[in-house]
Amino acid sequence: MTARAGIVVTGTEVLSGRVRDRNGPWLADRLDELGVELAYVTIVGDRPDDMETALRFMAERDIDLVLMSGGLGPTADDITAEVVGRFQARPMVLDEALAGRIEAIVRPLLTRRPNLDPEAIRVGTRKQATIPEGATVLEPVGTAPGLVVPPPGSGEAGGPTVVVLPGPPRELQPMWSAAVQADALREAIRNATVYEQRTLRLFGIPESEIAETLRVAEEEGVELGKLEVTTCLKRGEIEVVTRYEPDSAEVYEAFARVVAERHAGTLFSTDGSTVDEQVAGMLGEREWAIAVAESCTGGELAARLTGPAGASQYVAGGVVVYSNAAKVELAGVDRRLIEQHGAVSEQVARALAEGVRARMGADVGVGVTGVAGPGGGTEAKPVGLVWLSVAGPQGAALTRSVNLPGARADVRDRATTVALHLLRLLLADPAVRACPRSVGESDG
Amino acid sequence: MTARAGIVVTGTEVLSGRVRDRNGPWLADRLDELGVELAYVTIVGDRPDDMETALRFMAERDIDLVLMSGGLGPTADDITAEVVGRFQARPMVLDEALAGRIEAIVRPLLTRRPNLDPEAIRVGTRKQATIPEGATVLEPVGTAPGLVVPPPGSGEAGGPTVVVLPGPPRELQPMWSAAVQADALREAIRNATVYEQRTLRLFGIPESEIAETLRVAEEEGVELGKLEVTTCLKRGEIEVVTRYEPDSAEVYEAFARVVAERHAGTLFSTDGSTVDEQVAGMLGEREWAIAVAESCTGGELAARLTGPAGASQYVAGGVVVYSNAAKVELAGVDRRLIEQHGAVSEQVARALAEGVRARMGADVGVGVTGVAGPGGGTEAKPVGLVWLSVAGPQGAALTRSVNLPGARADVRDRATTVALHLLRLLLADPAVRACPRSVGESDG
Repeated sequence: MTARAGIVVTGTEVLSGRVRDRNGPWLADRLDELGVELAYVTIVGDRPDDMETALRFMAERDIDLVLMSGGLGPTADDITAEVVGRFQARPMVLDEALAGRIEAIVRPLLTRRPNLDPEAIRVGTRKQATIPEGATVLEPVGTAPGLVVPPPGSGEAGGPTVVVLPGPPRELQPMWSAAVQADALREAIRNATVYEQRTLRLFGIPESEIAETLRVAEEEGVELGKLEVTTCLKRGEIEVVTRYEPDSAEVYEAFARVVAERHAGTLFSTDGSTVDEQVAGMLGEREWAIAVAESCTGGELAARLTGPAGASQYVAGGVVVYSNAAKVELAGVDRRLIEQHGAVSEQVARALAEGVRARMGADVGVGVTGVAGPGGGTEAKPVGLVWLSVAGPQGAALTRSVNLPGARADVRDRATTVALHLLRLLLADPAVRACPRSVGESDG
Repeated sequence: MTARAGIVVTGTEVLSGRVRDRNGPWLADRLDELGVELAYVTIVGDRPDDMETALRFMAERDIDLVLMSGGLGPTADDITAEVVGRFQARPMVLDEALAGRIEAIVRPLLTRRPNLDPEAIRVGTRKQATIPEGATVLEPVGTAPGLVVPPPGSGEAGGPTVVVLPGPPRELQPMWSAAVQADALREAIRNATVYEQRTLRLFGIPESEIAETLRVAEEEGVELGKLEVTTCLKRGEIEVVTRYEPDSAEVYEAFARVVAERHAGTLFSTDGSTVDEQVAGMLGEREWAIAVAESCTGGELAARLTGPAGASQYVAGGVVVYSNAAKVELAGVDRRLIEQHGAVSEQVARALAEGVRARMGADVGVGVTGVAGPGGGTEAKPVGLVWLSVAGPQGAALTRSVNLPGARADVRDRATTVALHLLRLLLADPAVRACPRSVGESDG
């Protein structure tokens, strides 16, 4: 037995692609934690018929739990609560107490912004407090309450429980823990089985190699039928995600051994950690400070390094050196190197890494220079050519070039990933580890 | 009459949220250009039953055209072509000529990587060349061919045409123009109506204000029933997208006038342009160079400014100054300012903007310093407090603080957007425009 869920994301702005859906992926993780199988995600516009059709689709496929996001706002195109009420055959009723609580949230906004129309606010508040009879209210985080709406009648007749959550992720996410407590949700997922899930990550081989490894594993007697293996190529990395029932743990271990044997040089993560996390961990462990000098990636490497909380512990800073003048001024690159070899060259990448490391008193420096396109390519240095260099203490350095496919945004994104892998390789090298620079010398 | 389409995105990695779908939004725009209404996007895992269910769902709702992405690779979990063949009642046949063409694409890869197994490659190639009978082949961009698969039989019986495209966006996108030429696709969308679509963008008001404006417009006699208006809050901006049939253009103009009257101070775009595009345009027009000094945004502002092609024309560079030492060293901030007022302060934001402008010889400088969280907040300077400053020629400057809601990533993202708006305001100011610094003084 198992419990199956569907997600219905509402919003014409999401359907049309103008807004990226961040709730589907987040909710997918939460379902996974609960041991609920996610079968479908459907995105529909703000049209009642299409929403109802999506709900009916889920109900007809024996879905136990539907999670919906969006359409709980104060405007007239926010119709989710009403559609769900009709779908579950529950009349809409005004919850006066809830209206009062929403008003208390909205009041400070009115004081701060005297130009707002109080009547418009009141209409919106009462709309947000009108909910299907018998629904459990999830207290607002912003101004919109969430709802857990049971199937019609006592629920014996079947049909999914529908959970309605607000669209903004920072309202939806804190509301989830309350949703999970609701009786109607717990009842809907009573048959959940928690699967194990493990992730392997590889860098530097094509996806077809993993297909071959799966064939080899099967030949060697690994019962792949007990594992659900998915491989995908993502930012130049291959991610192998395996789900299995807890009693198939040994089958997974056998499979993971075959991958580790065949791909020793390219398998960089067996515990699901990302290269970002590994680099952050290694920098933290060494108490090293990092500085970066970027040309074609234009700040993306710095942004990725400073993304995690606590990055200020190991990021000294970075320079974005688009112009040659900036390369000289901010990263201390010798102007003659640029003249002799060009801005996109091994020599300049290395000078950027060493220069920014010295300039910012960091332990490790990274230099990236390349042709992101669409213009600026030549026969010798085509669009997609990127030189990268990582410089550590005592002259330790790794420098390489790559030819990256795709459009400008792809080249920038991929180059950032390659830089992180180069950094990981240098940080993982015990020879570099053996002679660390004293932390006292760094001001990062 | 109209033509309706659905999108089926396949891939367990997309369903589970591990990979973000970039194809749905891109295809949504293409359908819009063709005047085809997008009714549903459904994401399903790599399970044949779920894919077939999604196709059947679309067929039963009178969808004329289904676009599918993903699952065309060489591995065994890539099953889309086979599922679609069965759905359209077309047997799978090996296209020998296509197999040859794919082999010719793969061969150079084999030469460069001698460790690959040629037999594994051959099996994968033949799998990719086995296609539903009667399908139109879209030539591979990577190694995977796309397919346009007509409904069963002559097509008179109805049912949607299914277009199968590869998952990687850089393969899918170039293939689209060939897909649009295919007879089966043209036949499916013969009833398309091209709608007009216009976008307004506002910055600095809550969404409920737009709801009120819609009510006012209706009271003033604007026939809103002829317009499909969607509003959404995105990165702190409000986007108002309106679709209408060409003969309702005057209704739209009347609506746009009401918005412009009521929101003169916050409406910044009436032609759909983004703040990024407006800033890029204004910098280009003035032939000004920009430099940025970022603390809490950690490179995101530089990355956003350098995102568009041609950014090297106006971006001199940037510095990411996480540590106080870097603020002093790279942006020339007076150390005493930091000691007196703290790193997150009006004075330091201003010194960052002016310092980086002077240091890089730019015409305009931007400084951002704030508490992105989750740690580091105090009562006086809570998480979300960000000071921003823009400095232009002859002492022209705009400096302000904001209290941004949300988690670390949200604060960084929003602060970047606020910086761009501050920049836009300075660049739009005719007083600043009246006394430009000579371009010759810039080395950007």
